[in-house]
Amino acid sequence: MTSTHHAPDPTTLAEDAGTPGPWVFDFSAGGMDQKDLLGGKGANLAEMAGIGLPVPPGFIVSTLACRAYLKQGREPSHLEIEIGQHLDALEAKSGRRLGDARDPLLVSVRSGAKFSMPGMMETVLNIGLNEESVEGLAHQSGDARFAWDSYRRFLQMYGATVMGVDSAVFADDLARLKDARGVTHDLGLDATDLKSLVSTYRTLIRQHTGRDAPQDPREQLHTAVLAVFGSWNTDRARLYRRREHIPHDLGTAVTVQTMVFGNRGMTSGSGVCFTRDPSTGRPGVYGDYLSNAQGEDVVAGIRNTVPLTDLAAIDATSYARLLDVMGTLERHYRDLCDIEFTIDDGQLWVLQTRVGKRTPEAAFRTAIAMVDEGLIDIDEALRRVTGAQLANLMFPRFDTTQHAELLATGTAASPGAAVGRIALDSATAERWAAAGDAVILVRTETTPDDLRGMVAATGILTSRGGKTSHAAVVARGMGRTCVCGVEAMHVDTVARKVSFRDGPALSEGDTVSVDGGTGQVFRGNVPVVASPVVQHFEAGPEANPAEDTDDDLVDAVDKILTRSDQVRRLRVHANADTGADAARARRFGAEGIGLCRTEHMFLGERRQLVEDLILAEGAEAQDAALAKLLVLQRADFVEILAAMDGLPATIRLIDPPLHEFLPDLTELSVRIALAEVGSTHVDRDHRLLESVRRLHEQNPMLGLRGVRLGIVIPGLFRMQARALLEAAADRLLDGGDPRPEIMVPLVASSRELALVRRELQRVVNEVRAARGVDLACPIGTMIEVPRAALTADGIAESADFFSFGTNDLTQMTWGFSRDDVEAAFFSTYLEQGVFDDSPFETLDVEGVGSLLSTAVRLGRLTRPGLHIGVCGEHGGDPASIHFFDAIGIDYVSCSPYRVPVARLEGARAVLARPQPTTSRSPR
Amino acid sequence: MTSTHHAPDPTTLAEDAGTPGPWVFDFSAGGMDQKDLLGGKGANLAEMAGIGLPVPPGFIVSTLACRAYLKQGREPSHLEIEIGQHLDALEAKSGRRLGDARDPLLVSVRSGAKFSMPGMMETVLNIGLNEESVEGLAHQSGDARFAWDSYRRFLQMYGATVMGVDSAVFADDLARLKDARGVTHDLGLDATDLKSLVSTYRTLIRQHTGRDAPQDPREQLHTAVLAVFGSWNTDRARLYRRREHIPHDLGTAVTVQTMVFGNRGMTSGSGVCFTRDPSTGRPGVYGDYLSNAQGEDVVAGIRNTVPLTDLAAIDATSYARLLDVMGTLERHYRDLCDIEFTIDDGQLWVLQTRVGKRTPEAAFRTAIAMVDEGLIDIDEALRRVTGAQLANLMFPRFDTTQHAELLATGTAASPGAAVGRIALDSATAERWAAAGDAVILVRTETTPDDLRGMVAATGILTSRGGKTSHAAVVARGMGRTCVCGVEAMHVDTVARKVSFRDGPALSEGDTVSVDGGTGQVFRGNVPVVASPVVQHFEAGPEANPAEDTDDDLVDAVDKILTRSDQVRRLRVHANADTGADAARARRFGAEGIGLCRTEHMFLGERRQLVEDLILAEGAEAQDAALAKLLVLQRADFVEILAAMDGLPATIRLIDPPLHEFLPDLTELSVRIALAEVGSTHVDRDHRLLESVRRLHEQNPMLGLRGVRLGIVIPGLFRMQARALLEAAADRLLDGGDPRPEIMVPLVASSRELALVRRELQRVVNEVRAARGVDLACPIGTMIEVPRAALTADGIAESADFFSFGTNDLTQMTWGFSRDDVEAAFFSTYLEQGVFDDSPFETLDVEGVGSLLSTAVRLGRLTRPGLHIGVCGEHGGDPASIHFFDAIGIDYVSCSPYRVPVARLEGARAVLARPQPTTSRSPR
Repeated sequence: MTSTHHAPDPTTLAEDAGTPGPWVFDFSAGGMDQKDLLGGKGANLAEMAGIGLPVPPGFIVSTLACRAYLKQGREPSHLEIEIGQHLDALEAKSGRRLGDARDPLLVSVRSGAKFSMPGMMETVLNIGLNEESVEGLAHQSGDARFAWDSYRRFLQMYGATVMGVDSAVFADDLARLKDARGVTHDLGLDATDLKSLVSTYRTLIRQHTGRDAPQDPREQLHTAVLAVFGSWNTDRARLYRRREHIPHDLGTAVTVQTMVFGNRGMTSGSGVCFTRDPSTGRPGVYGDYLSNAQGEDVVAGIRNTVPLTDLAAIDATSYARLLDVMGTLERHYRDLCDIEFTIDDGQLWVLQTRVGKRTPEAAFRTAIAMVDEGLIDIDEALRRVTGAQLANLMFPRFDTTQHAELLATGTAASPGAAVGRIALDSATAERWAAAGDAVILVRTETTPDDLRGMVAATGILTSRGGKTSHAAVVARGMGRTCVCGVEAMHVDTVARKVSFRDGPALSEGDTVSVDGGTGQVFRGNVPVVASPVVQHFEAGPEANPAEDTDDDLVDAVDKILTRSDQVRRLRVHANADTGADAARARRFGAEGIGLCRTEHMFLGERRQLVEDLILAEGAEAQDAALAKLLVLQRADFVEILAAMDGLPATIRLIDPPLHEFLPDLTELSVRIALAEVGSTHVDRDHRLLESVRRLHEQNPMLGLRGVRLGIVIPGLFRMQARALLEAAADRLLDGGDPRPEIMVPLVASSRELALVRRELQRVVNEVRAARGVDLACPIGTMIEVPRAALTADGIAESADFFSFGTNDLTQMTWGFSRDDVEAAFFSTYLEQGVFDDSPFETLDVEGVGSLLSTAVRLGRLTRPGLHIGVCGEHGGDPASIHFFDAIGIDYVSCSPYRVPVARLEGARAVLARPQPTTSRSPR
Repeated sequence: MTSTHHAPDPTTLAEDAGTPGPWVFDFSAGGMDQKDLLGGKGANLAEMAGIGLPVPPGFIVSTLACRAYLKQGREPSHLEIEIGQHLDALEAKSGRRLGDARDPLLVSVRSGAKFSMPGMMETVLNIGLNEESVEGLAHQSGDARFAWDSYRRFLQMYGATVMGVDSAVFADDLARLKDARGVTHDLGLDATDLKSLVSTYRTLIRQHTGRDAPQDPREQLHTAVLAVFGSWNTDRARLYRRREHIPHDLGTAVTVQTMVFGNRGMTSGSGVCFTRDPSTGRPGVYGDYLSNAQGEDVVAGIRNTVPLTDLAAIDATSYARLLDVMGTLERHYRDLCDIEFTIDDGQLWVLQTRVGKRTPEAAFRTAIAMVDEGLIDIDEALRRVTGAQLANLMFPRFDTTQHAELLATGTAASPGAAVGRIALDSATAERWAAAGDAVILVRTETTPDDLRGMVAATGILTSRGGKTSHAAVVARGMGRTCVCGVEAMHVDTVARKVSFRDGPALSEGDTVSVDGGTGQVFRGNVPVVASPVVQHFEAGPEANPAEDTDDDLVDAVDKILTRSDQVRRLRVHANADTGADAARARRFGAEGIGLCRTEHMFLGERRQLVEDLILAEGAEAQDAALAKLLVLQRADFVEILAAMDGLPATIRLIDPPLHEFLPDLTELSVRIALAEVGSTHVDRDHRLLESVRRLHEQNPMLGLRGVRLGIVIPGLFRMQARALLEAAADRLLDGGDPRPEIMVPLVASSRELALVRRELQRVVNEVRAARGVDLACPIGTMIEVPRAALTADGIAESADFFSFGTNDLTQMTWGFSRDDVEAAFFSTYLEQGVFDDSPFETLDVEGVGSLLSTAVRLGRLTRPGLHIGVCGEHGGDPASIHFFDAIGIDYVSCSPYRVPVARLEGARAVLARPQPTTSRSPR
């Protein structure tokens, strides 16, 4: 994308307030890629002015000036002079003077940082109005009401933004006046009303500040600019930036622009529009229009807007011009644009544009449509969609083609489509869940005390809190659907009711449907359907696509993923514990299994066999139990190897402590105590209790598990290795292409791995010899204990590959167990900024990431080219994938549903890498 | 210490077997500091030869030759030639030829590595004897019995060592012959008997190997040398080296020395002696002598030795010469020497010397006596005693001046003096312990199943296993006294008896006394007394020392510690939780409190208050509970600050999760279940169970504790800070000099500490202002979570000091919880060589140590000169202290009893640092 670059390279500009500048730039002096210097809004205005669109003229006070002001506590010494010079030029161009008593030039002052911070910073409109010029404006416009309304708005904004009067003070007075006049809309007030309101506002300002708002127009402008600078550092702005990961040292630019008016009667109006449908991505004209209104009125929803297409009837010329502008902007930006415009007495003005926000499905449709239209290339399309969007597209959704009554919308905090009965406390949720009902736990907000209810529920709904609230964090951690911050919802735990603003009041026990991907809450049981994207994957490439409205979406996803597979360096494996999982993973594009957790194979009816193994007295009884398990495990492995034929299947040996297969200590103790009261015979229970007590651990995560179990009870690992190798031999003799790999968990020292490897290698050799097959079986290790990462050079001596278990590594590096801490304090930690993201969702690059980097470096010191993967949940997390790509990881492994996400982000990571530059690139 | 260095610098010697050498060195060509090249035995022989002592002449085949042989699988090409040349010289010197038929020169071949490996490698005596020379020897010595006995010994040793015949084969035949002759001692066999035994041995060798022992004397010598090389790599030698931390690549030297004979009748004999009493360190003549015997007979205990002083009567001339030699050696070595000698027909020969092993008390007495005698300086004295020895001296001991019947001696595995009733299983141990009896758990060996019995016992006694056995490892971890490997003890769990070889059979329930410092086991209840060193510290420097036989020991310790305090760089603080602990620590020389665990202040009767705090509903009830705790804590702190007046007292804020103060979940559940059956009212119990369930954690170590608790319940930390500051203000106003410091536990990220620090600082300022005192209170942090070490640069921004909590850091870096893993698999891990030492006893330098180094570096990047301590148990461990000194730690903190140990080792660490060299120093 090209643009004209008239502004000086900001890297050559000093940021010292004593430097003569330049600090201020004309619209003609910049373009859209100058956002660092001019802010997003200013850069786009300059860009539009540059391509000849009807932009009200103005200039931009740069971020440099703001940074100098914030850093040194005073404005740059030449700033006021420069603003004056630019204003002179603006006056000369328009032929009017700022605040002129007869025909005043008025300007707006708006903040505009590099990154959009909606609602965070300040705007002052109608600068230039005072006791004299308001009369001039009335005279010149022939509309006294318009003039006094404009002055009233100026005082309100200036009073709040520059002079620090609580804006509620003004709003209260306006409301009182409307009440007194018996009108509901501002439009019901006439010029006299507004003139008296101006008088009241001036009095209020004097009462609250001891001063008058300045009458001098240039003083108004200058102080407004500095007030916008100051608004960068309000508490809420800082909080917002921290949550959105925007650096605090960027500062904001300030746009000073000639006022145009949509509120000058019925030949005027304001609107917003998108160049395509932002919710589907399909072509068409989408937007809203409001006659006789300024832009802020459209946003505030004071009156009802009309669909933009109605403008064709209201003002055909402006409508045609607008369609023309939309076409120009989309072609110029080569992206879906979001445009704010005003028609001032029949004259169309574009006030702002930016690349438009869109839903996930719109992102995919738009990106591929623009590739088809030749606007962008396929790699640019990849840059424009995200793994998070793709993940969103893959969740089940409600079939809203059926009737579905929307109750309210909140923050989409944890994806999924959950249907269940409203339960207002944990006890109820547990009781109903135990009875087999699906439950939605509904609370004003949740606390750690609600944990048991959250566990029991399929969905969680709260009226307070955002994406980092307790409910949101815990729900994501547990994989529960969650919508939070539904402000229109009121929970009454006394009446056992949940009521919705402008909607019904439901009773506890009623059914609701909660969409964690969109934040929507529906009444009753809305049918759930699989996402079309998942249906497509599941059907496989050969399937004949059904005629479906989502064909183009599926096609877009396919094209994106096909290109992703060409671009990415990271390979993508899946975590799969069964043949069915493995087959699904393969349909989703997995190139192998990165983690097969064999302990899952000991659950269900096989639990009894593990109990037998533990209760076994003597080596023979133990061997007999192991022999039974061997047969079952071998069958499991045959299925998995068949599903992954020709691709690597990495089998992790048993990891959890053995007592996890035994009954819970407390439950068993109570059962026995009660049985004894009734003199019931509980012999096996007694023996079991002995074992449970003996094996009980204070901190099972840090106990006898993984490789430790393999060294203390070597028969267990040997049995698993034998089952795997025999399964592979069976497959091979059946003409298959099995690629088994063995992974040893929880290794902390090189000697542990060397000991176990020797045993495993012996089994591999024995089976090879016994079956007469030539079968390779690499033996590698998880790196999931901090010490393993710190001593990876030694460990690599016995490891054919590494795989980072980032879940355990995160737990041990931070010293916390996810089960215990997520509900207990993660929301507090996110709010207090200890984390920017939960370290279980996105890899903690600073801490855990440094261990990964160390292990990659040390491991390859010993074994150059060592194959290294990641098999924690982070393997499917977009931000983490970029880090893995950067440090030279070879593959990630994630749940089957995350495989497409990882394929996409693996490619985006490559495209996001800093490109080699031959000369300094413009900022 | 100086010595003559005739041997070439070994660093210039090639180790390739094809190199022409030199591989072999004459005694005259080396000295005691050539142990790398000549082995310990060879170097000391060369040294003694050099200072003119009567050493049988010989030469040394160097370790270089051994290493080349082991590495390349063949002997150096010139080795045989060199051995021949040296033998030629030896023959020329003695005027006899090896194996000469008339008057044969005989030689011994002995292994001798750099580090002593007693019993691990091989010796062949009497090389040169064959069918002809045995007759020559008989003729020349006039003693046919002697000649045939010598030949018999040669065949036995050569057959076993060089030809690989099981030595039991020979021993069995000897025993059969003695039975047949009706004699108990070898001396009962005459020349004819021995001649027939020679014949039998030759037949046995032929039967077992198909070959004859060679008759050619030079072939005998050459093959014996190679056999000794080979013995370096036997399984048992490798195992021994792994346990003793001796590198596997050193190789052994081989000493070839002219034979002298202590078995040439009553004018001959052999003995061992020490230049001072090795058990007390007091001067005198200590040793054993056996007439008409070779050295091996003395060691084997075949006949009873006599005290060395008896030699004065047997052979006054040799006795006088020996005393002379002893004086010469002690003056030359400037240390207690252990000497082996032989008198060959009235002629004294010194066969070996080395610095003598000694008991801890002997080490201290000897070192200071030698300083007083001007033999060494005080720093050399410091080098000669160890912290481990000092620790040993500080344990309580049995008062063996009373009657005490020694039953047996085993391996001293975990120090202490324990008295209790013998219990043969865990159930019995628990039952008796619950009844208030002290219990000694006695087992053949322990397994993880015995854990509950070990917890219940005060001492543990086993008949099998060494210092790394399960019993030893677990007992040390739990601080229980343990003696293991008491081979003379037999445990009969059927008859419920414990019998001792050559001693009584005791019944289960009988009382024994177990000394974990000496390995001794006594019958009955032997009175325990405090160690004189501890009595001395406890009495304080002003105390008038009672007349006591241990005055000189206490004086030696004092002198050593006084010098230590001058030499060391590391400061020594103590871990102390009460005023009494603090006062004791100070008497032991602590320079402050490095760790005061405030959670101990919530135990006992105060537990109720913590329960109230947890059960509190609403902020007021919580504040009320905190207010009660504040008063108690303040009183605690006043006592501690008073005891540490003028010295820093570092208070760690509460660390464990709150549920640790509540009843156990399982016990409470059972209690309630049973109570309900009986319809008892259990309302508070029910509320308690709710809280216990709510606060229950899967992995409490990784749960809501430390700084996390401080952020989630800020009132708790604030209360503690207020209590501390108010206590300090009280002290200050009372004229004291309180130096409080606050330490925040479990910090993992800089933001956590910054948040908590802000709160704490506010309390500090409030108390300062309210009391009008100018009181400094540094706020620092534990570094005990891996992430804290990895991000120490950021954390140092908010920390006035760091203190490494090496216990938790070890647990998290290895990913294991001490409670769960020590009994479960540490002995297996030690045996399999995963650890050399338990990482809870000695810091794991490779893994945990690398985190410490990183944190020290990063912390001081941010805050140069940052004060850094260690407050885990490793702070009192000698080896760990040396590491802490090396990486620039400022202070260690340990239990009061370990303070003197740390003072000593802090100084020894300084003395052990590599000295700057101006030229290459001799090896």
